[in-house]
Amino acid sequence: MDYVYGPGRNHLFVPGPVNIPEQVLRAMNRNNEDYRSPAIPAMTKTLLEDVKSIFKTTTGTPFLIPTTGTGAWESALTNTLSPGDRIVSFLIGQFSLLWIDQQQRLNFNVDVVESEWGRGADLDILESKLASDTAHTIKAICIVHNETATGVTNNLATVRKIIDAYQHPALLLVDGVSSICALDFRMDEWGIDVALTGSQKALSLPTGLGIVCASPKALEASKSAKSVRVFFDWNDYLKFYKLGTYWPYTPSIQLLYGLRAALDLIFEEGLDDVILRHKRLGTATRLAVEAWGLKNCTQKEEWYSDTVTAVVVPPNIESSEIVKRAWKRYNLSLGLGLNKVAGKVFRIGHLGHLNELQLLGCLAGVEMILKDVGYPVKLGSGVAAASAYLQNNIPLIPSRI
Amino acid sequence: MDYVYGPGRNHLFVPGPVNIPEQVLRAMNRNNEDYRSPAIPAMTKTLLEDVKSIFKTTTGTPFLIPTTGTGAWESALTNTLSPGDRIVSFLIGQFSLLWIDQQQRLNFNVDVVESEWGRGADLDILESKLASDTAHTIKAICIVHNETATGVTNNLATVRKIIDAYQHPALLLVDGVSSICALDFRMDEWGIDVALTGSQKALSLPTGLGIVCASPKALEASKSAKSVRVFFDWNDYLKFYKLGTYWPYTPSIQLLYGLRAALDLIFEEGLDDVILRHKRLGTATRLAVEAWGLKNCTQKEEWYSDTVTAVVVPPNIESSEIVKRAWKRYNLSLGLGLNKVAGKVFRIGHLGHLNELQLLGCLAGVEMILKDVGYPVKLGSGVAAASAYLQNNIPLIPSRI
Amino acid sequence: MDYVYGPGRNHLFVPGPVNIPEQVLRAMNRNNEDYRSPAIPAMTKTLLEDVKSIFKTTTGTPFLIPTTGTGAWESALTNTLSPGDRIVSFLIGQFSLLWIDQQQRLNFNVDVVESEWGRGADLDILESKLASDTAHTIKAICIVHNETATGVTNNLATVRKIIDAYQHPALLLVDGVSSICALDFRMDEWGIDVALTGSQKALSLPTGLGIVCASPKALEASKSAKSVRVFFDWNDYLKFYKLGTYWPYTPSIQLLYGLRAALDLIFEEGLDDVILRHKRLGTATRLAVEAWGLKNCTQKEEWYSDTVTAVVVPPNIESSEIVKRAWKRYNLSLGLGLNKVAGKVFRIGHLGHLNELQLLGCLAGVEMILKDVGYPVKLGSGVAAASAYLQNNIPLIPSRI
Amino acid sequence: MDYVYGPGRNHLFVPGPVNIPEQVLRAMNRNNEDYRSPAIPAMTKTLLEDVKSIFKTTTGTPFLIPTTGTGAWESALTNTLSPGDRIVSFLIGQFSLLWIDQQQRLNFNVDVVESEWGRGADLDILESKLASDTAHTIKAICIVHNETATGVTNNLATVRKIIDAYQHPALLLVDGVSSICALDFRMDEWGIDVALTGSQKALSLPTGLGIVCASPKALEASKSAKSVRVFFDWNDYLKFYKLGTYWPYTPSIQLLYGLRAALDLIFEEGLDDVILRHKRLGTATRLAVEAWGLKNCTQKEEWYSDTVTAVVVPPNIESSEIVKRAWKRYNLSLGLGLNKVAGKVFRIGHLGHLNELQLLGCLAGVEMILKDVGYPVKLGSGVAAASAYLQNNIPLIPSRI
Repeated sequence: MDYVYGPGRNHLFVPGPVNIPEQVLRAMNRNNEDYRSPAIPAMTKTLLEDVKSIFKTTTGTPFLIPTTGTGAWESALTNTLSPGDRIVSFLIGQFSLLWIDQQQRLNFNVDVVESEWGRGADLDILESKLASDTAHTIKAICIVHNETATGVTNNLATVRKIIDAYQHPALLLVDGVSSICALDFRMDEWGIDVALTGSQKALSLPTGLGIVCASPKALEASKSAKSVRVFFDWNDYLKFYKLGTYWPYTPSIQLLYGLRAALDLIFEEGLDDVILRHKRLGTATRLAVEAWGLKNCTQKEEWYSDTVTAVVVPPNIESSEIVKRAWKRYNLSLGLGLNKVAGKVFRIGHLGHLNELQLLGCLAGVEMILKDVGYPVKLGSGVAAASAYLQNNIPLIPSRI
Repeated sequence: MDYVYGPGRNHLFVPGPVNIPEQVLRAMNRNNEDYRSPAIPAMTKTLLEDVKSIFKTTTGTPFLIPTTGTGAWESALTNTLSPGDRIVSFLIGQFSLLWIDQQQRLNFNVDVVESEWGRGADLDILESKLASDTAHTIKAICIVHNETATGVTNNLATVRKIIDAYQHPALLLVDGVSSICALDFRMDEWGIDVALTGSQKALSLPTGLGIVCASPKALEASKSAKSVRVFFDWNDYLKFYKLGTYWPYTPSIQLLYGLRAALDLIFEEGLDDVILRHKRLGTATRLAVEAWGLKNCTQKEEWYSDTVTAVVVPPNIESSEIVKRAWKRYNLSLGLGLNKVAGKVFRIGHLGHLNELQLLGCLAGVEMILKDVGYPVKLGSGVAAASAYLQNNIPLIPSRI
Repeated sequence: MDYVYGPGRNHLFVPGPVNIPEQVLRAMNRNNEDYRSPAIPAMTKTLLEDVKSIFKTTTGTPFLIPTTGTGAWESALTNTLSPGDRIVSFLIGQFSLLWIDQQQRLNFNVDVVESEWGRGADLDILESKLASDTAHTIKAICIVHNETATGVTNNLATVRKIIDAYQHPALLLVDGVSSICALDFRMDEWGIDVALTGSQKALSLPTGLGIVCASPKALEASKSAKSVRVFFDWNDYLKFYKLGTYWPYTPSIQLLYGLRAALDLIFEEGLDDVILRHKRLGTATRLAVEAWGLKNCTQKEEWYSDTVTAVVVPPNIESSEIVKRAWKRYNLSLGLGLNKVAGKVFRIGHLGHLNELQLLGCLAGVEMILKDVGYPVKLGSGVAAASAYLQNNIPLIPSRI
Repeated sequence: MDYVYGPGRNHLFVPGPVNIPEQVLRAMNRNNEDYRSPAIPAMTKTLLEDVKSIFKTTTGTPFLIPTTGTGAWESALTNTLSPGDRIVSFLIGQFSLLWIDQQQRLNFNVDVVESEWGRGADLDILESKLASDTAHTIKAICIVHNETATGVTNNLATVRKIIDAYQHPALLLVDGVSSICALDFRMDEWGIDVALTGSQKALSLPTGLGIVCASPKALEASKSAKSVRVFFDWNDYLKFYKLGTYWPYTPSIQLLYGLRAALDLIFEEGLDDVILRHKRLGTATRLAVEAWGLKNCTQKEEWYSDTVTAVVVPPNIESSEIVKRAWKRYNLSLGLGLNKVAGKVFRIGHLGHLNELQLLGCLAGVEMILKDVGYPVKLGSGVAAASAYLQNNIPLIPSRI
């Protein structure tokens, strides 16, 4: 059953799927149940209420869709827009590219705003587009909060500020797949109309839930949106929400209990402390990269991502060799460079159920691999830089004080 | 974490989701993995090969889609058809109704052939429609193999015979959700173009995989089908099949290992013996119903379902009371009557990882409940009838001889 | 990994080890932990406090020993007695026999009071022995509360009454292996000095914990008891209890969490309701046996056991054939007849995490097996008799009302 | 259920209990079974055969006893010796001390050979004792292969050489608790008469199995040994071995399946490669300690332990502060200094299911903790030293080449 056994734990540092806490594995270790019994609706009700807090929304309506992030994207678009609608969409890496591809294939009129990979969304162009769009032809702005391919975090507060400056009515649709539950994310405050994530990212569950949250304005838009949809139709959900049975089709019982456990862990740690932990992990990783004399794919500090770091390798090194070697020799799973940055970067995912010593083990591994592939790294240098920061910043574990 | 604890095992006799074998629970009890490592493609390759056998196909191409049966339906339709295409579709119960609703919302031109609930698809009408369709305006025939709401199994061999008699080129799309891995199902022999099931049915997994299998003709159709699709697009899968990486987006690692274990169990028992076991369970259930003096919702023996039995209650009894009482007093989960048969039938699901003594425990429970709600059943009568048949027909367990 | 796979659930009706609730399996599904961290002592403290309630004691001192029931016996004896001490011990079946064998091998002077197998302890002889023992040479009375081999429950209240009538100072040591958590058991009220059980019995855990509870008088006795002991020595535990670290050697982390979950389930159901449930299961089983025209090995109603029923088969049938056939054909595990009753009885264990429909499935299976082996049973008769009783007596599940 | 939740994985570096592989957790995630069915004896038979290989014996007889290491000690002693028998026993740390305490309490005449803690067994004294014991009054030599409290490995080959030099018939009883499956151990070649380990050590299982292996000479001795024993009596096992049912009392089904999985993993990696991995982990740890400028409690290289390193802290630091801080701030579990070295050493366990990056994460943590408590360590120094060695020595994972 284990195709490629290696001794000891696998060190999982891809930017998703991420490590699942034992508490969640336990919660999911169960037989199926009749989802039409009173038990599942009762649990679903509290899940829907509690899941709002990870979006920082009180007015949003969440949907727990048995799908992946790609499906969550499709849900966000087809429920709020009609074919031919004009969208402004930012292309800054592989995942925003894939979303744009989907937008185009769903027949929207996509106004692509491209940045160099490693840079954030070009908000000046957004501003100029909104400024000139007095006719309000732009129906939606689509932005990836955190581009997982390059480790770039966009500034959503600024996006909202720009939209507001022009009092533009466009919907703001945000891919929070590698940000929600890990980065500062404020759906209500930032006026996000649809936010979405996947269970296998910072929530630290298996793949299988696309979690989508719609603002009242997005729900209103869904009433007139003409995109064809059935499986992803919010209205089917809303109909069952009203009935109190909640599910238009069979949910995964295991993922519901898993989500319950995952939320409980986040609440126990405190969402803000979870975010601070990711800040520590991101900072430590960047300090190590700097100590190794390597460059972060992310070009400016304002875009640094606390969930994933794409490390640029020297031209004489093929980054996929690093990833292969990590797996073959160290039982370490790193992220490949994708598309435009294939061969040029490797990625360290540092999100989800993860702590500092796990990260330091990974960083120690990366150092050895760099040496393996001929990069003249000083062993221990990255760990030293990261440790110096962490040793000053790790808090005591509250339950153990 | 357990909302409504009751002592002892829950007796899960809804027609899905069904009982998960311990072997599958064990296989799924694992951390996430990097799905881009060599291990997951290697496993996926064997899964795709092995899963064909449950469809009895050698020429089909399977897709393991992170979705439910509803999504699998959408995948079957949108990949093979274009908006406006004429479909002949049989309405014989709640699930065929829901599929037809989806077909209509996806903008197909649906020619609904309705039967009384409790009867199978009206194949005479199919014949007359095909006979008169010399222009081949019918692009697809959509049929549910086993209607889960009424316990009716349609005769797919006859459907194929009719289509062939008129040499009609329409695609044959089959919902095998509550049949595949439990009833006799022969994709190649019966010329089925798309067959589909969901993981939580006879495969006895959690919900989360829509398993769809396409014939070469269906694949060919997908090249010109104009229905808008992205998440469900087979071509995205095929692209990654060619690359040998297999996944256009993140699969559930746990469900892949679970599917591996589920297939291994089916192969160990033998698919034909699995089907025979379901025949025994179905027959035993029907004998009990008869002994209780109650009627099967299914009107003729030719349509009897070996995976679910819908039992008609006398007019003075409300069938949902039976389901409620089963759960509240006996820790037994039965299926409700749905839509037209709401209040009039309750359903006993007898599919998936289940053996004869489990079923007899359920039947004993139903007898007590019938008495609870005022029906003058002779306690033990159904069990006696079922046992008399089973005692003559249960084989020895091969591994224990 | 599964040596003898059979489809569906195994029906586990041996009188231990018994079915483990999913809640307990979940709780135990965890990595090891440092048992010297503050977490484990904190948990142990509450476990020791809570476990007292299953003995119905407030003054007893419990020990959670990493051993089996056999080890728990040895712990009870060696901590309270010295070699050569006179013990009165009742031989009524295989397990009391094994305990007596242990007592003799540990060099006690055992006064064996034998009954016919199927009868309870002969308390008249106890009375006469105590009456004549004015010199108080009897140091302990050893009695099995429920003899698992014959399904005989002794009356401990009467034992206590007799001891008190003669104001005899002998210690009362009770094997509660197949009674505690299932039958009415009152350590304090009945003046029991050492009571013990094993985790795999009515607590519904895996094997591995011998749970022993000592009265203040037993603890006092342990100070002067001269039996050689180290692993089983209570004093080593008491030393660590005082230190607040609790463990003289490494406990099973998994069993501690499992015990926590098991106790929580018992408390949720209510210990008295757990006992009532066993009373229902026992009564139903006996009614079925009677309906089959078979005899209970237990000769009188006063000794009927609510945790195990030993069923006497007709002389022409070999009972082990029934047990073999149950396993080979029905995936049903029944208990063999042991020693004097080998070949003559088979046993149905009905204890632990079990409900009525599970039992009825088992009884339906037994009927078919009886027919298989040539006994002219009327199929359905036992189930009918059991159901008639149960349908009148099963309460609603409190959490589901 | 989790008393002291901390984010991310617990880093378990106590010298037992150790990390359990997911494969083993999966194997153990199962309901109870009837241990008298044909399945369990069949599995037990192969386990007993296979477990011999971890002792490197072909002539030994293994016992899988439901107990801990303390119980395994008692089993070794009481089955081979009689009260009053003279034993030579080496006191070199807390665990040898505890074993000696047990030997004395079991009424053997113990000739204690004490070394300074941090030094190995004084084999010169052994030699002189054997030389002078021409009357063969010494019945057994008891030695701990690896003293877990100080990280000292004794040279068993030399012990055997000495015994043979004097052709002394004394039994050689070896505690291999923290060595077997991790250090080079050769029962047959070194003429060991009883070897023992516990499941929660290098086998990486939960606590609960004391695994004892007896040479033919030890089995012979057990026939005349007069120590009182029942639970631990090998003869009870041997009786059931002959019957082919194997178990004198109820085993833990879960631990048997867990042991099966654990052995399979060891065989897949290869026992010799497992031992080499421990050599790497031990060497790396010692290099880090040296780089930190700290001393190994083990005084000479010949005694260095590859499973646990006891690190001596400077006089101004209390080592238990390090252990507390590790747990409270870094979710890292280290071993305390015990008894004579309490407060003076902390211990890093590096045994069982563990790989190099896990260790480096631990070492990085220890560096930060050392700084926390005021020791002027250069952060990264230990990791650098360990990495430099590991990067040259880690092999590719065979299944991934």
